[in-house]
Amino acid sequence: MSETYSYLGPSGTFTEAALAQVPEARGKEWRSVNNVGEAFDDVVSGRSVAAMIAIENSIEGGVTSTLDALANIPNLRIVGEYLVRVQFVLVARPGTRLEDVRVVNAHPVAYAQTRSWLDANLPTHGHIPSTSNVASALALFENDLADAAVAPPQIVQHHELEVLAENIADNANAVTRFVLVSRSTVLPAATGADKTSIIAELPDDRSGALLELLEQFSTRGVNLSLLQSRPIGDALGRYRFVIDADGHISDERVADALLGVRRFSPSVIFLGSYPRADQAPVEYVDRYDDEVFREAREWLRGLIDGEPTA
Amino acid sequence: MSETYSYLGPSGTFTEAALAQVPEARGKEWRSVNNVGEAFDDVVSGRSVAAMIAIENSIEGGVTSTLDALANIPNLRIVGEYLVRVQFVLVARPGTRLEDVRVVNAHPVAYAQTRSWLDANLPTHGHIPSTSNVASALALFENDLADAAVAPPQIVQHHELEVLAENIADNANAVTRFVLVSRSTVLPAATGADKTSIIAELPDDRSGALLELLEQFSTRGVNLSLLQSRPIGDALGRYRFVIDADGHISDERVADALLGVRRFSPSVIFLGSYPRADQAPVEYVDRYDDEVFREAREWLRGLIDGEPTA
Amino acid sequence: MSETYSYLGPSGTFTEAALAQVPEARGKEWRSVNNVGEAFDDVVSGRSVAAMIAIENSIEGGVTSTLDALANIPNLRIVGEYLVRVQFVLVARPGTRLEDVRVVNAHPVAYAQTRSWLDANLPTHGHIPSTSNVASALALFENDLADAAVAPPQIVQHHELEVLAENIADNANAVTRFVLVSRSTVLPAATGADKTSIIAELPDDRSGALLELLEQFSTRGVNLSLLQSRPIGDALGRYRFVIDADGHISDERVADALLGVRRFSPSVIFLGSYPRADQAPVEYVDRYDDEVFREAREWLRGLIDGEPTA
Amino acid sequence: MSETYSYLGPSGTFTEAALAQVPEARGKEWRSVNNVGEAFDDVVSGRSVAAMIAIENSIEGGVTSTLDALANIPNLRIVGEYLVRVQFVLVARPGTRLEDVRVVNAHPVAYAQTRSWLDANLPTHGHIPSTSNVASALALFENDLADAAVAPPQIVQHHELEVLAENIADNANAVTRFVLVSRSTVLPAATGADKTSIIAELPDDRSGALLELLEQFSTRGVNLSLLQSRPIGDALGRYRFVIDADGHISDERVADALLGVRRFSPSVIFLGSYPRADQAPVEYVDRYDDEVFREAREWLRGLIDGEPTA
Repeated sequence: MSETYSYLGPSGTFTEAALAQVPEARGKEWRSVNNVGEAFDDVVSGRSVAAMIAIENSIEGGVTSTLDALANIPNLRIVGEYLVRVQFVLVARPGTRLEDVRVVNAHPVAYAQTRSWLDANLPTHGHIPSTSNVASALALFENDLADAAVAPPQIVQHHELEVLAENIADNANAVTRFVLVSRSTVLPAATGADKTSIIAELPDDRSGALLELLEQFSTRGVNLSLLQSRPIGDALGRYRFVIDADGHISDERVADALLGVRRFSPSVIFLGSYPRADQAPVEYVDRYDDEVFREAREWLRGLIDGEPTA
Repeated sequence: MSETYSYLGPSGTFTEAALAQVPEARGKEWRSVNNVGEAFDDVVSGRSVAAMIAIENSIEGGVTSTLDALANIPNLRIVGEYLVRVQFVLVARPGTRLEDVRVVNAHPVAYAQTRSWLDANLPTHGHIPSTSNVASALALFENDLADAAVAPPQIVQHHELEVLAENIADNANAVTRFVLVSRSTVLPAATGADKTSIIAELPDDRSGALLELLEQFSTRGVNLSLLQSRPIGDALGRYRFVIDADGHISDERVADALLGVRRFSPSVIFLGSYPRADQAPVEYVDRYDDEVFREAREWLRGLIDGEPTA
Repeated sequence: MSETYSYLGPSGTFTEAALAQVPEARGKEWRSVNNVGEAFDDVVSGRSVAAMIAIENSIEGGVTSTLDALANIPNLRIVGEYLVRVQFVLVARPGTRLEDVRVVNAHPVAYAQTRSWLDANLPTHGHIPSTSNVASALALFENDLADAAVAPPQIVQHHELEVLAENIADNANAVTRFVLVSRSTVLPAATGADKTSIIAELPDDRSGALLELLEQFSTRGVNLSLLQSRPIGDALGRYRFVIDADGHISDERVADALLGVRRFSPSVIFLGSYPRADQAPVEYVDRYDDEVFREAREWLRGLIDGEPTA
Repeated sequence: MSETYSYLGPSGTFTEAALAQVPEARGKEWRSVNNVGEAFDDVVSGRSVAAMIAIENSIEGGVTSTLDALANIPNLRIVGEYLVRVQFVLVARPGTRLEDVRVVNAHPVAYAQTRSWLDANLPTHGHIPSTSNVASALALFENDLADAAVAPPQIVQHHELEVLAENIADNANAVTRFVLVSRSTVLPAATGADKTSIIAELPDDRSGALLELLEQFSTRGVNLSLLQSRPIGDALGRYRFVIDADGHISDERVADALLGVRRFSPSVIFLGSYPRADQAPVEYVDRYDDEVFREAREWLRGLIDGEPTA
């Protein structure tokens, strides 16, 4: 199989920084793509062994194109999670001064995250949207529609640009969460600090359906770290839910919750069990321990087999 | 093994009428005992193959001595359920007239159930309690403390008594529910109209514990026909619960609910799965069908084994 | 109004010991009655200002005749709760020796609670049931059917009896809970250590109804100390529930839970809010504090009145 | 007060089509703004009486900038809801033929919704993002970077453009939901077909918090038509929820649910009660009727006041 890894490029994006965290990807070919669709095409076609994709930003929320692609393209699996701290610089063609800047090129998300700084320091600036955080800077070399660009700090490692200002993001703690997506159905081994991701639709026929879906987890002591609704797309008011649950499918309580979800939901997609980026061990109360599940099954089996209960 | 059946006697009791409904007991030895403790002693010791025991009355509620014995004596199993309509007659020594009656002998439960009739027709009567519905009548032959007795209609088949009044129970629809109890751990086959009985204690450490116990059934679509609290006995406010659930342990949804109860409860006693006396088929909604459970397990197994999900 | 207090007599019963705990009853007339029905008749008719009634025993559970009377007789209110430690002695006519005892007179509940001692010390004894714990002893003077009686320790203060054995109860910690019942609808003031008692029927039309009833309390942070099912009496499987909730109806969270129960239940009887016998302050988490309820109401009122929320 | 209405312009946008549905806005001044922030600035400053804002798209989901602005700007109220069917045309400078098109200007959301058509009919096209659905078309007159633009059908009423293709949206049923936002705290009158919108944060201190939040609605029989999570923004994994509930705050069950939410949530924003765009009457079961709530309150008041319950 190919040893290529796809990522939202070009060189210098946060996605590339996420891919740089993957030990298996070192020394392999990295393929820069233009959008989520291309990245998943690479994976589905086998052109790449995996693709690194942004899935959630601590300021902007879930990346909807990623969430919808995961819901609509079959046979994708998340095999890893990575966090990248989001920070921006304002860059310009060499020789440009801050007071010369009248139009700023920026990806809409980056623009939203630096808007306060820009409004305070460039109160009359105009905005041209770009398709990526690096494209904004590259446009400076292609035409002179903009005078400066909002870009990731690592941009200066790849291009001859002048940094007019650093740390211009409004929120110094912004983080983007990335996932590595492959077609492999072999599950990463449980580490004790794992996540399990699914996408589930709700049955139509009753109110309180979301409540019932959530109870599948709560009654097994499984916490959720993400619950994001996405429209199914056929009508207003019909949603599927992207869910990140603490734990690995090989944990009994997670497996039992998944069984409950599968029985309940008209459509459930298993996106994978994989190590958490923060490596925080999953916490749960004793009565949801694997051993409790196994002991109960043993007890039930004995009852059904007619064994004396002593 | 012994082919003897124990029942709360003597001949003529409602319990005997319940035992008469058991095809397997016909032509076998029937052993009359004085109380629930003796009946269960017979079963535990192997003296009897099974004992017929009243467990609930539609007017008086659960028979607490039975419920507590089932909780405290290990290795008992309910293998069948039987209903007997409760009706009473007022009987006396031959020659007695209703207007002569000043003192009535009656088991306290029977007395409570005929109290309105007695108050209306014998407004100044006194009451002597007896230990059983037949002992009340037999006492008429032993001494003359009482002038009449409240007894089951079938009493006149066994003893020379005058019926002073019939149908004297206040509620014409009163029914007593009996169970046949044995030591056999072989489960009666599922009939589609079954009950599963358990006794479960609640964990101490949290409020809402009963709610969580009940959710083990509701989240699997299993209805309960009985929920009776009984004191554990060591302190006020500590209870165990006797539960009758619709369905058989070989039904997937019942088995899964039992697994949940076993994981949750510090002590759970399985009392058996057996055909319902009323033969009413268990109703449940489609999504709790056996096939749904099996399909979900198959799906989970495929995920864990790393099978392609196609 | 009458200043008489009714109790299950005669002198020497545990019920009298409970009544002795009531400061308001000191120096007033105490009326001994034969059963719960008479006691409640006294209250309903105004013959007595209140009646002391056993409602639950730590070994035997709820006193079903009391629970059913509270459900069926309108306009009764519990105004106080009292605990009496249950202990028994074996008494006999002066001159009797333990080894002479062949038949024991005992109220069925007392008999059940001393059965282990009696079986160990009088293995061949017979049993005659009595209507009360004192009647058992009094019968010794009326006839010689029994040789000894199981009675409360205080019996010897009232009658010339020989104590053959003390502390014969199987469980040294047995406690009976009594309630003082009146017709007054004036609520005892909240003390911070209160109970609220209700009896509620479940709606017929859906499974999970008990779960919904319990949620009315749990979603307001109100703990339950008693949940006892009683048959409504018209058919097997139809129950009402006797519930003791922590707190006073003047506590916001209790009042809100009662509103929820009233809306949910086809029939709910309010039995009263009154100080707990154990004087244990009710514990609840901060977010269910009265102030939180009041503040939320004020907020809602402002929204509905169109006040600026600023 | 000003009689100006703000909307995301320029003329020809879907937002303008939504504003055209507002009877009160006819004949008043309509102010075109560039983004959600400007629109809300107009409302907060009093420059406009109200602003029309897109809040949800049946394909793309919630409009995150709108949802976040509603969460962060105080004193905003939704006073109306409007639906606009989303359809697109491909337009170009007069004389352009479809086969000439190599680069397409399109707002990213419009591009996503027409991607299938574009990929099928212009397989090698490039994409330039615009800031609005009308800006894409206007850019054709400003420079020749793009050869065609994706725009709403009504664009041709305002500009001299050639329609190269109609109905190019991938989903013919796509709908965008708009809300009219003002500062007025006077509630629109209940119509029986209303919605109530809130934004609520979850308490930190316990898992199952979302479940508890949802139960505040389900236990009062209130259905939700929208539940959208948005990051609070300070850290990954911390969310607030935007909720649309069926019914008006003057409906007892909705008011009671809001009380529950207010008590539960550390921060809740009331966004308003207003008529639904689809005018569908709110359905609820009888036991959640206003009268049931009022009757229960009356009953409780009587109990607390010590009235005889007769």
